[in-house]
Amino acid sequence: MQRAAALVRRGCCPRTPGPWSRSQSSAAAEASAVLKVRPERSRRERILTLESMNPQVKAVEYAVRGPIVLKAGEIELELQRGIKKPFTEVIRANIGDAQAMGQQPITFLRQVMALCTYPNLLDSPSFPEDAKKRARRILQACGGNSLGSYSASQGVNCIREDVAAYITRRDGGVPADPDNIYLTTGASDGISTILKILVSGGGKSRTGVMIPIPQYPLYSAVISELDAIQVNYYLDEENCWALNVNELRRAVQEAKDHCDPKVLCIINPGNPTGQVQSRKCIEDVIHFAWEEKLFLLADEVYQDNVYSPDCRFHSFKKVLYEMGPEYSSNVELASFHSTSKGYMGECGYRGGYMEVINLHPEIKGQLVKLLSVRLCPPVSGQAAMDIVVNPPVPGEESFEQFHREKESVLGNLAKKAKLTEDLFNQVPGIHCNPLQGAMYAFPRIFIPSKAVEAAQAHKMAPDMFYCMKLLEETGICVVPGSGFGQREGTYHFRMTILPPVEKLKTVLQKVKDFHIKFLEKYA
Amino acid sequence: MQRAAALVRRGCCPRTPGPWSRSQSSAAAEASAVLKVRPERSRRERILTLESMNPQVKAVEYAVRGPIVLKAGEIELELQRGIKKPFTEVIRANIGDAQAMGQQPITFLRQVMALCTYPNLLDSPSFPEDAKKRARRILQACGGNSLGSYSASQGVNCIREDVAAYITRRDGGVPADPDNIYLTTGASDGISTILKILVSGGGKSRTGVMIPIPQYPLYSAVISELDAIQVNYYLDEENCWALNVNELRRAVQEAKDHCDPKVLCIINPGNPTGQVQSRKCIEDVIHFAWEEKLFLLADEVYQDNVYSPDCRFHSFKKVLYEMGPEYSSNVELASFHSTSKGYMGECGYRGGYMEVINLHPEIKGQLVKLLSVRLCPPVSGQAAMDIVVNPPVPGEESFEQFHREKESVLGNLAKKAKLTEDLFNQVPGIHCNPLQGAMYAFPRIFIPSKAVEAAQAHKMAPDMFYCMKLLEETGICVVPGSGFGQREGTYHFRMTILPPVEKLKTVLQKVKDFHIKFLEKYA
Repeated sequence: MQRAAALVRRGCCPRTPGPWSRSQSSAAAEASAVLKVRPERSRRERILTLESMNPQVKAVEYAVRGPIVLKAGEIELELQRGIKKPFTEVIRANIGDAQAMGQQPITFLRQVMALCTYPNLLDSPSFPEDAKKRARRILQACGGNSLGSYSASQGVNCIREDVAAYITRRDGGVPADPDNIYLTTGASDGISTILKILVSGGGKSRTGVMIPIPQYPLYSAVISELDAIQVNYYLDEENCWALNVNELRRAVQEAKDHCDPKVLCIINPGNPTGQVQSRKCIEDVIHFAWEEKLFLLADEVYQDNVYSPDCRFHSFKKVLYEMGPEYSSNVELASFHSTSKGYMGECGYRGGYMEVINLHPEIKGQLVKLLSVRLCPPVSGQAAMDIVVNPPVPGEESFEQFHREKESVLGNLAKKAKLTEDLFNQVPGIHCNPLQGAMYAFPRIFIPSKAVEAAQAHKMAPDMFYCMKLLEETGICVVPGSGFGQREGTYHFRMTILPPVEKLKTVLQKVKDFHIKFLEKYA
Repeated sequence: MQRAAALVRRGCCPRTPGPWSRSQSSAAAEASAVLKVRPERSRRERILTLESMNPQVKAVEYAVRGPIVLKAGEIELELQRGIKKPFTEVIRANIGDAQAMGQQPITFLRQVMALCTYPNLLDSPSFPEDAKKRARRILQACGGNSLGSYSASQGVNCIREDVAAYITRRDGGVPADPDNIYLTTGASDGISTILKILVSGGGKSRTGVMIPIPQYPLYSAVISELDAIQVNYYLDEENCWALNVNELRRAVQEAKDHCDPKVLCIINPGNPTGQVQSRKCIEDVIHFAWEEKLFLLADEVYQDNVYSPDCRFHSFKKVLYEMGPEYSSNVELASFHSTSKGYMGECGYRGGYMEVINLHPEIKGQLVKLLSVRLCPPVSGQAAMDIVVNPPVPGEESFEQFHREKESVLGNLAKKAKLTEDLFNQVPGIHCNPLQGAMYAFPRIFIPSKAVEAAQAHKMAPDMFYCMKLLEETGICVVPGSGFGQREGTYHFRMTILPPVEKLKTVLQKVKDFHIKFLEKYA
């Protein structure tokens, strides 16, 4: 330190090579010795600290990978080190990560991806022709016929065409324009990008973003980051988490006192709540957005995950067009899809798309400019998206296997949705709405006042306290409702239904046993 | 419109299903008819417009994919439509996209990626054992042994370990800690994430970010987005674009009048300028950062791209450690690498890493939290990064081929760097510094005052005017220096050296002919 200080006074820097110019191992040893011996003596205050950092980033919370998940990681390490626990493994039911729970990838999707990755395989007889055809088509649309080239910032052209064709089929012929499709790095990327463009103003003119409570915490996180105003509207738990337009009206009216509500976010099928919106409800919401001049964000990543026989997925886009030209040529809408959910569960590839409707042409230019800064979404994720929207069709070689695999995943999920609802509702002090769609249960749990007090003593939200205890006693990792938002005084947790059926039964039984014990302990 | 208005008065929404509930094709036809007939009549003002959008996003510029590239796209379409031009193809020398220019992927990397993508191939005799070994190792570290699972937000553990081992080897034994490694979606993601955390304060306390001029426009774009203060320091063109600490001192002193300079960004090897910093220069910069309490960002994505026999890549990390504990335990540094450049050129996979040094433990927590919102970087990109840092070694089955492919790419680039420098310097009115590293030439061009006037008449920067003419007359797409920043009154363009040697020769000849003609025209 003295030497450095002296050098500063002389206004130059130390030129003598340090210990690292000597042999690697001795140098490494010496360095760590140096660092160990005098870290305190020479340590200055850091430039980047909790005090000096971006306060908006500091305010961000993201429960799905929050403290409970860090704790789960610690427990896993303890188990690996042989520390005895009342369980032998941590079950991560905190995140919708299907393949991590043992779900097998769709064979056809991976075949096309492998062919695109290593085109020598196009000569291999062990790959089906329909997979090769798709791979060739994707490669031809890539620079240098390679997944290793950047794509256009908006995504590979032919993949955007396939997405548009998929949407048109899905929506019974409502036309989709490839120019309105933006391929994204998972759906999260699309959602945060469009919000980034939408947020403006200061003080009472700051943009308000309406989000459901409970919500998927990406929304609150991005709102924090952008310093926008979060405007909560509550889903109706008594009514299967339905969205009630009167509640939207209340929320927007109250918000107008302190911000400029400009965006309405909808998650359908719901995350974490699992409800599937009726066509009527969607019409009501669109009409409300039209009336209140709100930009609509429709998070539809669970569009393939509808289990209840009484429910059907209706896209906001389709309903918008069915409502006639006053709506279809005026309401501004961005909707999102992803490779991560559905029956394919390809989370790791970070594929997704956004479709925009009625976006001002100048804003389209701004969007492309903003996207171009990060160059392009991962091209392998774009290829995965292509297979999701362009799967084998009847008559193609791979159709039968594809169809079997898809139905098996979705059939299993439907079975597990019912199983979870039924089992939770047998437990005293737990109430679970039907899991109409998505891949989560969000049961309401009764927490006795003594447990609420104990939680307060630990400076924890009561449901965080509950989930921590559940994790420590059973190894089951779920996310407290407070991470998603809930009406004050109510408590919930979100649990995925992704473990295989037999394991899910065990999990549910363990939660039941834990809950009964918990009620007894804090009675 | 009347119907909709009536419905509003009644306070409910139209219930009647629109035309889309009928047959798909007729419905589609009718819709577009409807949209064509009365778009103007029913069109309201948009919510999201240039006026209402986020002004910080509006201020973003990104020249590498800016107006010149849009024009190139238009010209390509015209060529496809058979419109005659004085050339038959557009040559995209605007972006460092090696594989789009015909560079072949490294076989070993793609073999491992294919094995990870479609693990059935692990039984195939046509893949080498060393590739299978790496694929198995990566898959074992993935949830459900699949690239389709989310990874930890910071990246797959064993890949972070491989990155740390690579850095330790590269830096002659200076230890690297996997806990300090964050896998990212290309280097851009790491750079924008750490800047996002660093920026704070208002008014004169707003964070100032020092960037070189010329710079890679990611920096200015992210600074705009974050509403931080851009603090320019100029590289010394007369001295091979060297970084002079006196210039850093000037810049920081001036900046202190209007902001809080807190971050110093360095690009080494330089983009767009191609210089490779000397060890002494790096020491000077580190000392300056220490003295001025600046957080250092070292963009080292071209670390494998050094061509000049007189130059060597020195990492900031290594020099920092060699300068002794006062520096190595105090200077806060983030350095970045990518799969996109080097000899592999795997841009499309969006792989990268960031290493942080002396980051406050609480900030590490904040960083992981922020990263967790977007879940994880693409796992396929992480796998690509693993092969970049853990390639075949002597004795392994694939070593010889790998080594041959790598040396061929780098040897070719070195040849093209020299060729480009030599050829540009033969043209009157063009001066080109040596291309010591990276993959760009950034020649200075003389633009006659008559051409400057013509550009002003077209409301274009003079070098944008020059590059547009070059594109229109030759099909060669390069980026004007004004997109990177340059001293006032000087003009440049950035051109990649990625086209194959023979094509590059033609390109350079065409630029020469164009330039001479241009000088004559505006003499």
